[in-house]
Amino acid sequence: MRKITFGVATSLDNYIASTDDAIDWLMPSPEAAAVLADYWKRIDTILVGRKTYDVALRRGQGGAFQSPGTKTYVFSRTLTPGEQGNVTIVPSDAIEFVRALKERKGKEISLVSGGELASALFEAGLIDEIRMNIHPLLLGSGVPLFHPMTGQIALELLESKQFPNGCVLVRYGLKR
Amino acid sequence: MRKITFGVATSLDNYIASTDDAIDWLMPSPEAAAVLADYWKRIDTILVGRKTYDVALRRGQGGAFQSPGTKTYVFSRTLTPGEQGNVTIVPSDAIEFVRALKERKGKEISLVSGGELASALFEAGLIDEIRMNIHPLLLGSGVPLFHPMTGQIALELLESKQFPNGCVLVRYGLKR
Repeated sequence: MRKITFGVATSLDNYIASTDDAIDWLMPSPEAAAVLADYWKRIDTILVGRKTYDVALRRGQGGAFQSPGTKTYVFSRTLTPGEQGNVTIVPSDAIEFVRALKERKGKEISLVSGGELASALFEAGLIDEIRMNIHPLLLGSGVPLFHPMTGQIALELLESKQFPNGCVLVRYGLKR
Repeated sequence: MRKITFGVATSLDNYIASTDDAIDWLMPSPEAAAVLADYWKRIDTILVGRKTYDVALRRGQGGAFQSPGTKTYVFSRTLTPGEQGNVTIVPSDAIEFVRALKERKGKEISLVSGGELASALFEAGLIDEIRMNIHPLLLGSGVPLFHPMTGQIALELLESKQFPNGCVLVRYGLKR
């Protein structure tokens, strides 16, 4: 069974972007880059929600989803289904699709979407790990990291690490 | 100028209580107790919102606000103004009241309220430090720690500490 990690950069008040989708508050660091570089070696599949994908395209960052050897699945009922290079637009139910994906052979899977896709996958019990790079600021409003869910989910802290720039990286496993 | 610290126990998805105000998910630990014991020595004033105070009274925990030598101020337009032991019900505008309180001589001030009072005091620039004991679970819904605010607030990470039970204590100073 392939592992799915939900990995995000977030403000302390759990927003992943400002109200206008801006992420100019993100603080890059060699430490975060090293963690990510190590992580990307272990994955071959990216799951992304339609809104996050749209924002990336609008910013001219669609190339991030075209790395050789990495398949990206975008879940959308409005985009035209099909393949665009390494990106596949999936019109079907995300939960059943991801469940099947986990059963297939392959490397780890990264969920980089914001809240809505993540909440659905959390509730379906399909996410194995959360990694948050908590940035030292309150955004006050914006795009929420977590959307309301119907039940509590117990976590196991795997790691917490403080970066010199004031970001705190936390990793949690989901208890079943 | 007296320091005001906003100190809370929270879930990873930033809820301070379940939908029914339950806090049965809180994980006490000797480490958190030691941090709190040290902190309580430095304060002589508690600020609390009306809802948090109500919940404490309903749980029979009103005694927490009656420690000798500690004054508690509850901000409410509906409760009868006046003193109840060491607790004072303040009907006036919280911001002006707290601004004056900070100027008075005394020890540090603890804000233990949930979101609404905190947001108002954050926006007025009256909070100096945030301390969160982040619990390893997603509540999914409940009483939010942060309420929407109109602007971003930059923070400085002062400390992050991992407890054996999986809680992560983070402390931030507010940048002016």
